[in-house]
Amino acid sequence: MLPRGRPRALGAAALLLLLLLIGFFLFGGDLEYERPRGAAALDGDPPAGRGGHNLSDCVPPRPLPPKCELLHVAIVCAGHNSSRDLNTLVKSVLFYRKNPLHFHLVTDAVARNILEMLFHTWMVPAVGVSFYDLEELKPQVSWIPNKHYSGLYGLMKLVLPGALPPDLARVIVLDTDVTFASDIAELWALFAHFSDKQVIGLVENQSDWYLGNLWRNHRPWPALGRGFNTGVILLRLDRLRQAGWGQMWKLTATRELLTLPATSLADQDIFNAVIKEHPGLVQPLPCVWNVQLSDHTLAERCYSEASDLKVIHWNSPKKLRVKNKHVEYFRNLYLTFLEYDGNLLRRELFGCPSPPPPGTEQLQRALAQLDEEDACFEFRQQQLTVHRVHISFLPHEPLPPRPHDVTLVAQLSMDRLQMLEALCRHWPGPMSLALYLTDAEAQQFLRFVEASAVLSARQDVAYHVVYREGPLYPVNQLRNVALAQALTPYVFLSDIDFLPAYSLYDYLRASIEQLKLDSERKVALVVPAFETLHYRFSFPSSKAELLALLDSGSLYTFRYHEWPRGHAPTDYARWREAQTPYRVQWAADYEPYVVVPRDCPRYDPRFVGFGWNKVAHIVELDAQEYELLVLPEAFTIHLPHAPSLDISRFRSSPAYRDCLQALKDEFHQDLSRHYGAAALKYLTALQQPPGPA
Amino acid sequence: MLPRGRPRALGAAALLLLLLLIGFFLFGGDLEYERPRGAAALDGDPPAGRGGHNLSDCVPPRPLPPKCELLHVAIVCAGHNSSRDLNTLVKSVLFYRKNPLHFHLVTDAVARNILEMLFHTWMVPAVGVSFYDLEELKPQVSWIPNKHYSGLYGLMKLVLPGALPPDLARVIVLDTDVTFASDIAELWALFAHFSDKQVIGLVENQSDWYLGNLWRNHRPWPALGRGFNTGVILLRLDRLRQAGWGQMWKLTATRELLTLPATSLADQDIFNAVIKEHPGLVQPLPCVWNVQLSDHTLAERCYSEASDLKVIHWNSPKKLRVKNKHVEYFRNLYLTFLEYDGNLLRRELFGCPSPPPPGTEQLQRALAQLDEEDACFEFRQQQLTVHRVHISFLPHEPLPPRPHDVTLVAQLSMDRLQMLEALCRHWPGPMSLALYLTDAEAQQFLRFVEASAVLSARQDVAYHVVYREGPLYPVNQLRNVALAQALTPYVFLSDIDFLPAYSLYDYLRASIEQLKLDSERKVALVVPAFETLHYRFSFPSSKAELLALLDSGSLYTFRYHEWPRGHAPTDYARWREAQTPYRVQWAADYEPYVVVPRDCPRYDPRFVGFGWNKVAHIVELDAQEYELLVLPEAFTIHLPHAPSLDISRFRSSPAYRDCLQALKDEFHQDLSRHYGAAALKYLTALQQPPGPA
Repeated sequence: MLPRGRPRALGAAALLLLLLLIGFFLFGGDLEYERPRGAAALDGDPPAGRGGHNLSDCVPPRPLPPKCELLHVAIVCAGHNSSRDLNTLVKSVLFYRKNPLHFHLVTDAVARNILEMLFHTWMVPAVGVSFYDLEELKPQVSWIPNKHYSGLYGLMKLVLPGALPPDLARVIVLDTDVTFASDIAELWALFAHFSDKQVIGLVENQSDWYLGNLWRNHRPWPALGRGFNTGVILLRLDRLRQAGWGQMWKLTATRELLTLPATSLADQDIFNAVIKEHPGLVQPLPCVWNVQLSDHTLAERCYSEASDLKVIHWNSPKKLRVKNKHVEYFRNLYLTFLEYDGNLLRRELFGCPSPPPPGTEQLQRALAQLDEEDACFEFRQQQLTVHRVHISFLPHEPLPPRPHDVTLVAQLSMDRLQMLEALCRHWPGPMSLALYLTDAEAQQFLRFVEASAVLSARQDVAYHVVYREGPLYPVNQLRNVALAQALTPYVFLSDIDFLPAYSLYDYLRASIEQLKLDSERKVALVVPAFETLHYRFSFPSSKAELLALLDSGSLYTFRYHEWPRGHAPTDYARWREAQTPYRVQWAADYEPYVVVPRDCPRYDPRFVGFGWNKVAHIVELDAQEYELLVLPEAFTIHLPHAPSLDISRFRSSPAYRDCLQALKDEFHQDLSRHYGAAALKYLTALQQPPGPA
Repeated sequence: MLPRGRPRALGAAALLLLLLLIGFFLFGGDLEYERPRGAAALDGDPPAGRGGHNLSDCVPPRPLPPKCELLHVAIVCAGHNSSRDLNTLVKSVLFYRKNPLHFHLVTDAVARNILEMLFHTWMVPAVGVSFYDLEELKPQVSWIPNKHYSGLYGLMKLVLPGALPPDLARVIVLDTDVTFASDIAELWALFAHFSDKQVIGLVENQSDWYLGNLWRNHRPWPALGRGFNTGVILLRLDRLRQAGWGQMWKLTATRELLTLPATSLADQDIFNAVIKEHPGLVQPLPCVWNVQLSDHTLAERCYSEASDLKVIHWNSPKKLRVKNKHVEYFRNLYLTFLEYDGNLLRRELFGCPSPPPPGTEQLQRALAQLDEEDACFEFRQQQLTVHRVHISFLPHEPLPPRPHDVTLVAQLSMDRLQMLEALCRHWPGPMSLALYLTDAEAQQFLRFVEASAVLSARQDVAYHVVYREGPLYPVNQLRNVALAQALTPYVFLSDIDFLPAYSLYDYLRASIEQLKLDSERKVALVVPAFETLHYRFSFPSSKAELLALLDSGSLYTFRYHEWPRGHAPTDYARWREAQTPYRVQWAADYEPYVVVPRDCPRYDPRFVGFGWNKVAHIVELDAQEYELLVLPEAFTIHLPHAPSLDISRFRSSPAYRDCLQALKDEFHQDLSRHYGAAALKYLTALQQPPGPA
């Protein structure tokens, strides 16, 4: 291992000197870094480039944390939009990380709901998550008047030492608007620089805000020089607790608020005021760990080349629309993670054994048991796939629940986005829609909604993104996601290609009331389905108009030409004349569109791709003895569309049809297992030749 | 780390020692690496993890190459599939790179055609490309009998020292099936390890192939121990030329071929045989720079954690379907770059000033002149966007050109993939199709074609991927890409939603022959267009059948209900009766589907999104005095589809319609500029009220 010619004489000393020089050559940046840096270091020489061996070189100032050390990260996150930001931030961290991570998420109820589901379905190995209730912590900071756009949430960082588990000694605290361009372990390694007295690691501010000369009467809070930015913080929680941090910041804040009206930059003002008073607490961090991209940023003085960048901070309310010299570069980095397929981050940290995420082992056993040579391998693999789910992807403010309210439930992918506006016009009530998208498509969807006045105006439509994985459309898994998120006592189980009668929403609620239904009663209200084969088509405004169109051949009962069995039991002839709801009986292959209590049976997720996915659900309803009641004034109309890729495959591939048959057989076996002899009728019904439509 | 009990010395020496220790601590891995490694190092201890400071630690063995040094990379690439692989490899290199790069591509005509266009339209700053003709170099290796699946192409690496520019001293040589997981500059830095005599840097083989005991009578070529893998090579070209490499490898190969029938692993056998003879030539490289993922790989002994991986080599004919313990991890890394949006790699190396790619400056000036507040900003930005273009994305073997042959030209995006099979059934001739896709969608498209027997069977359909960027569909840019790639003397300019008469392809060729057209004659043959509003529709097999459907109301002339002006000049009444081609005159808003010589005017790229994109092209044909001849037996039928997002925007947004009007005005101004008074008629025609359809 050691060079030859070991210690003997002066030659040895010369060698030592040589090695020292080499050591210094590599270590120079670090020594330079160790030199105490004034808070106004930005004004000094710009850091040297790669030749100059500054901190951002590959050589870390201290070794990285021990292999497989668990790193802790705390993030405050509230609301729908921040949850999306957090997703992007986490993707950037996971992309570069090599260590197990634990995220400590301080959230409101909305974000918790979203993020619990996201992490639960993401199943990333060696990632733990804990949640802390933001509402509970609020009283500790709500007395502080604050003008920053982050509202009260920014202030929450002050109370982390008390909120996080008492045995947690160190944590990295991040704003949701930062993007990583490097391994977070390198940041964690900077804890090793802390002297015995230092408790907070921070990067200097890259603006002149705290210098207090931006405009006449600009009176910022006190800070050392330019002050520090709190978008990225290293906290020694153990020492903070010991030093009585909770008292310390409150004393300072209270005193400053005697002369200052409110914080402008939330927690950052208070952190800076405390540091001004106790400069010994802070360990200044290299500026590359928080490159701040506000409009008048001085960040350029910080980095001299791309390799210098470690963490980018979009700390302007303008976010990606901020102007600065290299914003294209930064934006590309951000877009990389915004659009990155999060499924690819489910990779194992194979150097670091860690307990698999809940459910993973069972899943992997099931996957391992599949036979790749099985003709239906694709189907079975797709059934087992756990899709990442991002519920309430866009802001959504449901109305308080009303007793007879109905949520329209449906699912779609990109090629049906153009249905959404029309659907909103036809259904003025709440909707719960599952969208099957890639990460990149989710961003296109976001822009689509933002560009639409009709969609932007609706606060009662919840969009749940289910991230794509695998070759077959997981139609029933999607339906179940949308169904699980419906908040009203009743749901209308629809499909995206249908437009309901304009009056349907009101009519359904009135019917539920008149029929004196309650959610205990097992009843499925049937909404008769029709279809038009024309794009240009004037939607009937009443049952009478609909019947006229039917008689003139402009409308048909749904799938009249190719699959009349699917809706025959609805008994359209009776419906023409009906004035009151009437009961109908289940028959083989019946697949009506129904309104049911929210706690109805789930769809069978084994049906992926085209075929039998709704039929099986109606069988399940019947097996559980749901009454089928057809509503005399209700209707919904199917609009034409190009055949889906799945239906094309069904039509052209005998193997596809064989697999569907296999799924049906297995479904019937399970049915017998659950319902015993009572399920016999479903099998018998199947074996009978189709009756007259 | 150092053994205890060192000779006592003076205090100063102790200090030196301390610093030495620090230096060594960081430098230890390097010293270890400097120890000459036997060719069988794999059998030794596995490399230590992060704690052990092995080579893969962040600390580079020598400093990285000087900032902004230009790094050279040579790759041999032939055919369509390798061109796709190369694209993915280059994306992985660009993602991590911080240096200017020059790619030296040794290609056949197919790959050159594809890659020239790809790099030209990619416009990546600080990336240069040179091409070398594989055919010219072939004679130097074609005498070597070879059994490897790479064919002759693998052998091409042997002749690089002679083929690359004589002043090029160093180059990294890569196989197309490698993926980078780190900065290529780190690999380049390993040149610094070469002793004065070493000329080739290679990673040891991670299989037992060259040990010669895999099966009875397994007789591999000679090699040192396990031998070396040539998927990643560092070549000192200067020294190779000096050492007479050209003679050296030929002598060795000739001698071995006296006893061995052929090479099994192409160039690798010969490199290894030469090295066995001259072991001093080789500098063994750390195994992480070529982690070989064949079925029985020993690669696992090489890396102990994810951070160790630098370059992954899919060196099994099974590629991604190879089985090994961590293949999920490797596959995810590969998929990351396969699906990565290449547009995001157009980022500047802002630390390294370099000449911008051709056209960039002009483009940036034009973009800078746009006014973000302009209501049509999106349109103007979209017009200026240069899309990355990957022509002939799939294998394509055009027939030799025939004098009257016609290529169907069209463009589409993902939502029209299901049209392709039907189109193939209707048009048995050559097609040139532009597809507007993201990188990820391009992979879905690939799988779609592979899964379709109809599509896989066609060798005369060329698919050109135009990568998506921007919010509006660049319809005319797409048409121009497809048009430019048509190889027959005539083109049928169609749209993806149309299915031509089954007989159209034959009929067009016959008509062109009968009319004695030649490509000098400016004539546009009009194919009358019809539409069905029904999905389920039995396609007419003759003009007589079509007329019957028209009379029964099952078919209409195209856009009869909403835009009759678009096709009125075709004169459908006359067509009913016509037995011979007849001439028609241009009129405002005419947009027929036509067959024209391949060198016809291009589409005006300013028309993006919906509207006027074809109309403007027909105006241009008329302005250039193309005769319009309607063919009496030709027809094509439009199938219904959901309205595109662009047409929805056109209908719902007055701003959109205003922008389209602005584009039309500018088009007419340009027309007047080009054609003077002759263009007046187009303006006048516009101002007249629409005549009877």
